[in-house]
Amino acid sequence: MSANAGAAPFTYDLRQTRVVFASGALRQLPAELESLGADRAFIITTRGRSVTLSSLRDQLGDGLAGVFDEAVEHVPTSVVSKASAAYERAKANVVVAIGGGSAIGLGKALARGSGVTLAAVPTTYSGSEMTSIWGETDANGKRTGRDQRVAPRLVLYDPDVTLGLPPDVSAASGMNAMAHAVEALYALNASPVAVALAEESARLLAESLPRIVVQPDNTDARAQAFAGAHLGGRALDIAAMGLHHRLCHVLGGSFGLPHARTHAALLPYVVAFNAPSAPAAMMRLARALGATDAVLGIASLGRSLGTDVSLGELGLRDTDIARAADEATATEYPNPRSASSAEVRALLTAALQGDRSYLVNV
Amino acid sequence: MSANAGAAPFTYDLRQTRVVFASGALRQLPAELESLGADRAFIITTRGRSVTLSSLRDQLGDGLAGVFDEAVEHVPTSVVSKASAAYERAKANVVVAIGGGSAIGLGKALARGSGVTLAAVPTTYSGSEMTSIWGETDANGKRTGRDQRVAPRLVLYDPDVTLGLPPDVSAASGMNAMAHAVEALYALNASPVAVALAEESARLLAESLPRIVVQPDNTDARAQAFAGAHLGGRALDIAAMGLHHRLCHVLGGSFGLPHARTHAALLPYVVAFNAPSAPAAMMRLARALGATDAVLGIASLGRSLGTDVSLGELGLRDTDIARAADEATATEYPNPRSASSAEVRALLTAALQGDRSYLVNV
Repeated sequence: MSANAGAAPFTYDLRQTRVVFASGALRQLPAELESLGADRAFIITTRGRSVTLSSLRDQLGDGLAGVFDEAVEHVPTSVVSKASAAYERAKANVVVAIGGGSAIGLGKALARGSGVTLAAVPTTYSGSEMTSIWGETDANGKRTGRDQRVAPRLVLYDPDVTLGLPPDVSAASGMNAMAHAVEALYALNASPVAVALAEESARLLAESLPRIVVQPDNTDARAQAFAGAHLGGRALDIAAMGLHHRLCHVLGGSFGLPHARTHAALLPYVVAFNAPSAPAAMMRLARALGATDAVLGIASLGRSLGTDVSLGELGLRDTDIARAADEATATEYPNPRSASSAEVRALLTAALQGDRSYLVNV
Repeated sequence: MSANAGAAPFTYDLRQTRVVFASGALRQLPAELESLGADRAFIITTRGRSVTLSSLRDQLGDGLAGVFDEAVEHVPTSVVSKASAAYERAKANVVVAIGGGSAIGLGKALARGSGVTLAAVPTTYSGSEMTSIWGETDANGKRTGRDQRVAPRLVLYDPDVTLGLPPDVSAASGMNAMAHAVEALYALNASPVAVALAEESARLLAESLPRIVVQPDNTDARAQAFAGAHLGGRALDIAAMGLHHRLCHVLGGSFGLPHARTHAALLPYVVAFNAPSAPAAMMRLARALGATDAVLGIASLGRSLGTDVSLGELGLRDTDIARAADEATATEYPNPRSASSAEVRALLTAALQGDRSYLVNV
């Protein structure tokens, strides 16, 4: 590390949180909710989590006030309204979001509206459970913001629930978590706390994800990846998001690209673009990846995981690029290297085509 | 890192905290207190902080409700009573502890008794400002415990206030912070969060302290050491303390040894004792120190800082050792390697004499 590491000013706020991480932790949910003073849980989830859900029905018994299982990606306002109405009818005193970014995002939307206590039981590596970042999408696109009220008060990680996550979904979700770590490492407001958590997040993810894709039921690797995702979310919560998150936000919110897979496909290109302006972050990232070069290390990790190598595979078209670049650069955002609309077009063109020469030539 | 890193269960609670870290941050104190809803500050400090104190008097103006400057080491109960009475008379709504472990420890004692909001302005590397750990000493010795009420709600770090900290005091205080990082690294309840923060703490301290002893007014090194102390305190807050803290507690509370210098003198011996049972922590510690061996790395750092090399210099006598060892092992405590009273006697004997052969032979 450079001799000046840790010498820059920083400010951060941590809200009260309780984190429980253990194989079988799902069984502790009723007791943990009780210690929050909550006895009527409203569950939010996505369709098809029947195993986890039926296990929770058994755990909660009479404490289950209602279930809403229509959470979908990017938190559409129409779904928020429907979930809100169901929540009101249920007369619950805690919202328990079970799932990935979609379910937890919807839980956050409810917490933002009603101020109700939110608990999260993550089932992917989205890291959303650790942040006060909310998002909501309507006909005008996706809006995001930060609000301490939406941050879950209790987060319960049970690595067992991730054992059934398919290898390809695990890989993409894991690279989404990696993207949180990467952007926290070079965030303009990076604190030593965020940087320490982000480097360790990248290390845990880089060690565990390649093992998961070949052995999805390896419990140690699953726990390690989940812990890495936890640290990445925690880091992102106190760090400003840069170009990568800005682009993913636009590509998901305005062009309908899938969240985690877009993160995975895009990340090497953004790291390559930012690398010249973030040498300390790249040194840390390389160290965490066990690589000599951070850009090639990220690209090589993605290749070993079999994640998408181009945005073209995910549905982005050549004709979308100009509008996406304009939208991404329409307002300011913090990033170690300023990016003109032309530079963003070049980046997106390379990412659309999966042009790896961009990674060494940017 | 071993492939299983991050796979063990963990639980931790973070309370709400705001951290402000900047050169000149002292000037932000009135505004920060106001945002806590506090307008009458009761200052707790030690004798002789007249420069910082007069600056704060100017800042706070009518918002200064009272000053108590009789904080001393190990938080004697008699001083707590006197400070409590002064606090009641002042009709304040926030306690601002300015100083090292003594002033902040007394602030915690007041918060524990009255539930008042505590803010901390650290001036040393004790890390006490980040923890919910309290201590109090009476004729029966020193008692310590954890209580979320004593954790400062606001912590304001101004590296400028440390510029005048003498090199020898800085070195000892810095090794006290290093001890927090070390024990968090191998804590039996270590979480990936604590471990990440602790490794970075050790890295920042190892980089900055040797620069501070040769150039005490180097502002970058001062900021870096302060940030390292911040991370060490944060890590210790969510990690169990082991043999090192147990011994320092006994040596300080029952034998009157000075807190920070005892930490500095004792640390290499405890690291040597624990090393065989904490290989992953030693790998991280060595990486942070830039050393091939963690034990020798810690000893070498102490030597380069000129901290005390023996407990004998600090006033411990041969005849104290049996009683200290018995007291230290009288009740259970978490440590990676169990230590019998005979083993503790051997460790303390080596540390009393400054016998470095212990470091390679334990």
